[in-house]
Amino acid sequence: MAEVAPDPSPLIIGGGGETVRRPLPDSFHVNGGDGTYSYTRNSYFQRLAANVVKERIKGAITMKLDVENLSSTSNTIYIADLGCAVGPNAFDAMQDVVHFIQQKYTLQCPQSNTTLQFLVLFNDQPSNDFNTLFTSLPRERPYYAAGVPGSFHRRLFPESSIHFVHCSYALHWLSKVPEELLDKNCGAWNKGRIHYTNAPNEVVQAYASQFAKDMEEFLCARAMEIVTGGMMTIIMPGLPNEMPYSQLAASLMYDFMASTFMDMANEGLVSEDEVDSFNLPIYTPSPAEMASVVEKNGHFSIEMLELTNPASLVDGPVDIKAWVIHVRAAMEGMFIKHFSTDIIDEMFDRLTKKLFMFTEQVESGYKDRTQILVVLIRK
Amino acid sequence: MAEVAPDPSPLIIGGGGETVRRPLPDSFHVNGGDGTYSYTRNSYFQRLAANVVKERIKGAITMKLDVENLSSTSNTIYIADLGCAVGPNAFDAMQDVVHFIQQKYTLQCPQSNTTLQFLVLFNDQPSNDFNTLFTSLPRERPYYAAGVPGSFHRRLFPESSIHFVHCSYALHWLSKVPEELLDKNCGAWNKGRIHYTNAPNEVVQAYASQFAKDMEEFLCARAMEIVTGGMMTIIMPGLPNEMPYSQLAASLMYDFMASTFMDMANEGLVSEDEVDSFNLPIYTPSPAEMASVVEKNGHFSIEMLELTNPASLVDGPVDIKAWVIHVRAAMEGMFIKHFSTDIIDEMFDRLTKKLFMFTEQVESGYKDRTQILVVLIRK
Repeated sequence: MAEVAPDPSPLIIGGGGETVRRPLPDSFHVNGGDGTYSYTRNSYFQRLAANVVKERIKGAITMKLDVENLSSTSNTIYIADLGCAVGPNAFDAMQDVVHFIQQKYTLQCPQSNTTLQFLVLFNDQPSNDFNTLFTSLPRERPYYAAGVPGSFHRRLFPESSIHFVHCSYALHWLSKVPEELLDKNCGAWNKGRIHYTNAPNEVVQAYASQFAKDMEEFLCARAMEIVTGGMMTIIMPGLPNEMPYSQLAASLMYDFMASTFMDMANEGLVSEDEVDSFNLPIYTPSPAEMASVVEKNGHFSIEMLELTNPASLVDGPVDIKAWVIHVRAAMEGMFIKHFSTDIIDEMFDRLTKKLFMFTEQVESGYKDRTQILVVLIRK
Repeated sequence: MAEVAPDPSPLIIGGGGETVRRPLPDSFHVNGGDGTYSYTRNSYFQRLAANVVKERIKGAITMKLDVENLSSTSNTIYIADLGCAVGPNAFDAMQDVVHFIQQKYTLQCPQSNTTLQFLVLFNDQPSNDFNTLFTSLPRERPYYAAGVPGSFHRRLFPESSIHFVHCSYALHWLSKVPEELLDKNCGAWNKGRIHYTNAPNEVVQAYASQFAKDMEEFLCARAMEIVTGGMMTIIMPGLPNEMPYSQLAASLMYDFMASTFMDMANEGLVSEDEVDSFNLPIYTPSPAEMASVVEKNGHFSIEMLELTNPASLVDGPVDIKAWVIHVRAAMEGMFIKHFSTDIIDEMFDRLTKKLFMFTEQVESGYKDRTQILVVLIRK
């Protein structure tokens, strides 16, 4: 069971799922190519997570997207997939979205002889492996395809040129590590940790505040690009309102990473300074936080905002080996940038062993409704 | 002089210039990355060639492009650069085109408060090194940028979605080697040659007929994509009407390549069969041929069709070493696909020596008005 369809839940909660798509500081990217640790071969957990929300997105398009109106001036629908990575999940998602929009159009205009056309703009950081993305595009696809390099915290497209935006497992990546975490004279100095699990309130606040800033930039850019009545669907890891982050199974992964690095620092394999100055720029908001940033921005109406259960498709115990490989495919580049490449194998080996030793703790972490789905309409 | 600004003429005529942009059978691509033989570092001859036509394109846009009308339904102008390779020449060309269209808009609508926006779609084969293209995009640019993978002999964009198409040094690449060249029982079997220089009439006809077919496919696809009144500019190597191809300096390069390969076959370094079955899928049409394929297609009016002199910017003798490196940057991938990679260095070394031995012959080749510029308007 677990061998065939490993339980994705802890990955989606934050270990693998959270770490999949990006952006990040420009030099970061998921592993390209198609080797052992490539994202292409190690992103099926994320696909399972996306499948959970597929029916909900179909419902949102059917109920809330006025395709007839969007196609009134031109029969081409422009769709953007932000943080597409190298596939293949992005292709499935886009095929679904195109299909749902076509169905809605037929529903709205049953007599129409017009055939809608679609241009899908696959976006990710310029350092993303677009070569792999492009050579693995499905040969038969119901859309024209383009790649758009750039950070989605800034403008990517002309004004009022996009009808639908999809952003899956990307917005939990902060645009940068909050600066306070590196200031030794500040309460938010994150010594001995690489994330905000079990961290002082100042650290958590620094992360939360960076997320709010990033979201505001993201929403302002999209507000310029999306036409009135256009839709944006966001899928990302989420934390139930009021729940401390440390209760999530995902947070354990980051805690174990930190302690693995500290073990290695004690053995002289890395320096303690290196560990202190390394922080994962990822954040998991609650629905309340998400609602607050969208309402503050003011350009979008919230049509749907809910926590879904990414684990609902599969059962069984956590497949720790697969979990770690997924995390590695998505995050290795970030570690290599900060630490020496020599220690990466060692770190992931130790991390796997550590997680196996604490299987019970991993299993007891909260894994249920930990995926946020937000559907917005441009006012 | 030649050291500083090597004479690009023979390259433009067909050696380097012709071999720059593509497409070709899908697996072919110019050299990626930024190493010694990379296209990025070895494409400045092509830039000089493009500069020659810059003023003419400005004139065509100013006189013939109704920007006011094109921007009447949306203030975004969609531009496609077909066969963009890996830059940097594509960036210069697109910056110029955007600038000329802006100027024309100001001329037409001096009172307008609208600011035109531009999305440039950089197209090339899926095997092109888009990663290099994307990471070398100018940070400051007057347009939004996207990459579009695919053969321009087929559809790339939605119907009526493009306002301006630019295609520089790409259309001389045939979609495939004409099949007759490989048929030993056919008069067009191209034994002992790799191109149609000094070849029997059947060989020349096979090339010409493949070019006509490719152009028809290209023009049909573009006719669907370009809006009425939209413009297409094509720059490619050209042959004066009535001149035999063998008179061009460029044709010498291919003749010397063939004889180099035959020398190597005699020494057992490659097999004779390998040489016989290798043919360069490139073609240099005359203005009369170009006019004929456009008129037969019928969807475009010819606003400008002329031979320009790519050598007009620089003088001096041919810099043979630079010429060969340019050819290598553009064509190496095609040789590697057919021959063993081991013999590539040897072939180019011998070719360079041979060209040095026949400097006088190289210099005497025709290099003047050998670049076609075509400006079309979608009817």
